[in-house]
Amino acid sequence: MIQKPKGTYDVYGEMGRKLRYVEQVFSALMDRYDYEYVATPLFEQSNLFHRSVGDSSDIVRKETYDFKDRGDRMMTLRPEGTAGVVRSYIENKMYGDIDLPKKLWYFGSMFRYERPQAGRYREFRQLGVEVLGSPDPMMDAEIISIPVNLFRLLGLEGVKVRINSLGDQESRNAYREALKDYFRPHLGELCHDCNERFETNPLRILDCKVDGNTELMKNAPKMEDYLNEESKKHFEKVKEYLDALNIVYEVNPNLVRGLDYYTHTVFEVEASVEGFGSQNVLCGGGRYDLLVETLDGPHTPAVGFALGIERLLTALDYEELQVGEEKELDIYVIPLSDEDKGYAIGLSQALRLSGFSVDVDSLNRSMKSNFKQADRKHSRFVMIIGESERENNLLTIKDNHTKQEYKVTIDEIIDFLDEHMDSCDCDDCHDREGE
Amino acid sequence: MIQKPKGTYDVYGEMGRKLRYVEQVFSALMDRYDYEYVATPLFEQSNLFHRSVGDSSDIVRKETYDFKDRGDRMMTLRPEGTAGVVRSYIENKMYGDIDLPKKLWYFGSMFRYERPQAGRYREFRQLGVEVLGSPDPMMDAEIISIPVNLFRLLGLEGVKVRINSLGDQESRNAYREALKDYFRPHLGELCHDCNERFETNPLRILDCKVDGNTELMKNAPKMEDYLNEESKKHFEKVKEYLDALNIVYEVNPNLVRGLDYYTHTVFEVEASVEGFGSQNVLCGGGRYDLLVETLDGPHTPAVGFALGIERLLTALDYEELQVGEEKELDIYVIPLSDEDKGYAIGLSQALRLSGFSVDVDSLNRSMKSNFKQADRKHSRFVMIIGESERENNLLTIKDNHTKQEYKVTIDEIIDFLDEHMDSCDCDDCHDREGE
Repeated sequence: MIQKPKGTYDVYGEMGRKLRYVEQVFSALMDRYDYEYVATPLFEQSNLFHRSVGDSSDIVRKETYDFKDRGDRMMTLRPEGTAGVVRSYIENKMYGDIDLPKKLWYFGSMFRYERPQAGRYREFRQLGVEVLGSPDPMMDAEIISIPVNLFRLLGLEGVKVRINSLGDQESRNAYREALKDYFRPHLGELCHDCNERFETNPLRILDCKVDGNTELMKNAPKMEDYLNEESKKHFEKVKEYLDALNIVYEVNPNLVRGLDYYTHTVFEVEASVEGFGSQNVLCGGGRYDLLVETLDGPHTPAVGFALGIERLLTALDYEELQVGEEKELDIYVIPLSDEDKGYAIGLSQALRLSGFSVDVDSLNRSMKSNFKQADRKHSRFVMIIGESERENNLLTIKDNHTKQEYKVTIDEIIDFLDEHMDSCDCDDCHDREGE
Repeated sequence: MIQKPKGTYDVYGEMGRKLRYVEQVFSALMDRYDYEYVATPLFEQSNLFHRSVGDSSDIVRKETYDFKDRGDRMMTLRPEGTAGVVRSYIENKMYGDIDLPKKLWYFGSMFRYERPQAGRYREFRQLGVEVLGSPDPMMDAEIISIPVNLFRLLGLEGVKVRINSLGDQESRNAYREALKDYFRPHLGELCHDCNERFETNPLRILDCKVDGNTELMKNAPKMEDYLNEESKKHFEKVKEYLDALNIVYEVNPNLVRGLDYYTHTVFEVEASVEGFGSQNVLCGGGRYDLLVETLDGPHTPAVGFALGIERLLTALDYEELQVGEEKELDIYVIPLSDEDKGYAIGLSQALRLSGFSVDVDSLNRSMKSNFKQADRKHSRFVMIIGESERENNLLTIKDNHTKQEYKVTIDEIIDFLDEHMDSCDCDDCHDREGE
């Protein structure tokens, strides 16, 4: 039997409803923030990720799916969403658009060949936003407010932000040199990867999972001491705007994020999730004022975030938040014999096009089994189609809540359903109204 | 400059709105048909497609994106949607579900390395449905009715179905032998591919683009003469149900479709699209009662269709049907200086969370340029935030339709907007109401 590729998963049933629910909430929120939808190809030329995510990053070195297409070009399944959006911004000359900044959102699959473990997948889904063309610290705050409000809308509590500033290029270079001076005498104490990072990107040493919480790390120079005036001012403004948005945040000087292209603000958003413990970060992002130029576009300040959807859905599960609940079916139709099916399916089509959800038995179930099926589907009405119904155009319809049975002519059926669909006197509906 | 991979495209702006609109219409229709959402991985083990789509098919032979993952397993980007859904049905043991048949829909990217040409992409999008577990010809008709109703809902005209029956396995085998007997003396007249098809799948000869409309083809044995009683009965029922659904159809005995796994009904749906000429097929599908077994699942009759979204969007364009029109912005906010931005962004957040769409100037535009921007975004209201607004919590808001200006306290702003948003007396709105 052929199985799905290791580390991937199938979406259906409850998972499908949850995924679509989160997409709908996010999409509606993005409408209100006035962002537009973007979708870039699932694979890109490999050098796009080498130049953006960075040759030295773990992602590009160890985790990408690379392949040659039938024309011998090196391609890579996208490991993240920003590079493709920036490539698209440049290639489609969006910077020439009069409606700047470009405020974009996406929702889709990303691919990383990681060791499979709980909650980590090789095809995973991210939602995210990118704003291209505004240097304003107000946009950093707006970007941070999006996941914060998304989490609140979904019902998560204890939503909190951790931020840091990596400063502009000048500040980063100064800090980089300070870090190298500090770590140089201690290279022997650091892991192999950190020794490599020392040359390629010493900021990443602070992020190391191996060398993590040592005294050496804690006493390392702090970015904030190397921020120039402009970078300081930018960071102060971001904090001021977060206050104006009533967003709880904490400055964490060791926060550097795993990607090479960040400048100024970097941030993570967490929520308090029973069962996640201290690993409660749900999303991260930051400003990347240099990336568009790195990819041969015009100077374009930019800021964005990305969020792993599987982890978000797990958080919602752990917190027992109801999302994407099964919808009740409006009408379950039972044709009594093959002769009744033409009539049943024609009527069902008319009801569906009038806005009702309809299912028709296609397995010739017994009456008992059909009523059980209608119950399983929480169908509000059950309609039985037999010879007498067909010949007289007089339908037999049973309210599955009140158990009352009606005879309704085919001309009046839509009016009947419109009238009876919402107003139910049964105990279940009364209970629900009272909630 | 790095470009998108040849044959792929970026979705944004108008294209993004159209794509999401079609997905929404389809998703809402699927709710009413009581189908559930399914999404399988974008890549699968290569042998899944070898065994389902078929080793001998053009797709698998010439058009797949194959690659080895970092664990040396042969993978293939999915070239179509059915194989993955069937794999998922078997692997997740959906056949054991008490709620049968499984009625599933999908919407997503597929990948084929084809020669790039107008309207053909290497990453393209399909929507489709699969019903697994019902042998009932009523389901064939229901499946056909879905694209028909989708096209009608989107406004397309002249929607028409072409159908044929390939019969069950017994009928297909008899027909296959008859075709071989017929073509054997003429192999010299047929193209190279047809000579290969003669051995692997002689039905495909009828579908050949090279040998197409010759006398030899027209006089070939017809499938209908080789259908056994059961297959004939199934086909008659499908036609009866299409009549009951008021669907216009035409039987085309040369319709075989490009995939190996079809049995009984195969169909195509067309619409009359100015500019498509005779190439007006928008979607195809059929019954595949043997595929689940071929992939080592239990015997499961099944039927489905798939539809190319790019071609559908082109059809809507050609027919000048309005889909996914730009939404009007509710409020455009202008902070007069940096000092006003905290207040502006806090207020904007409150308005967004109350359901209004809001954009805030983040480029320090001049007042004139800001009002132009508000017009470009068809913003209903413009709100100006300056020192006096902040200090007195008294907002300056201008109705961009009537050009009337109001002063509203911050406590009353939501009530004010609720009241004024729909009731506009300006000429534009009057004109629109009259339509």
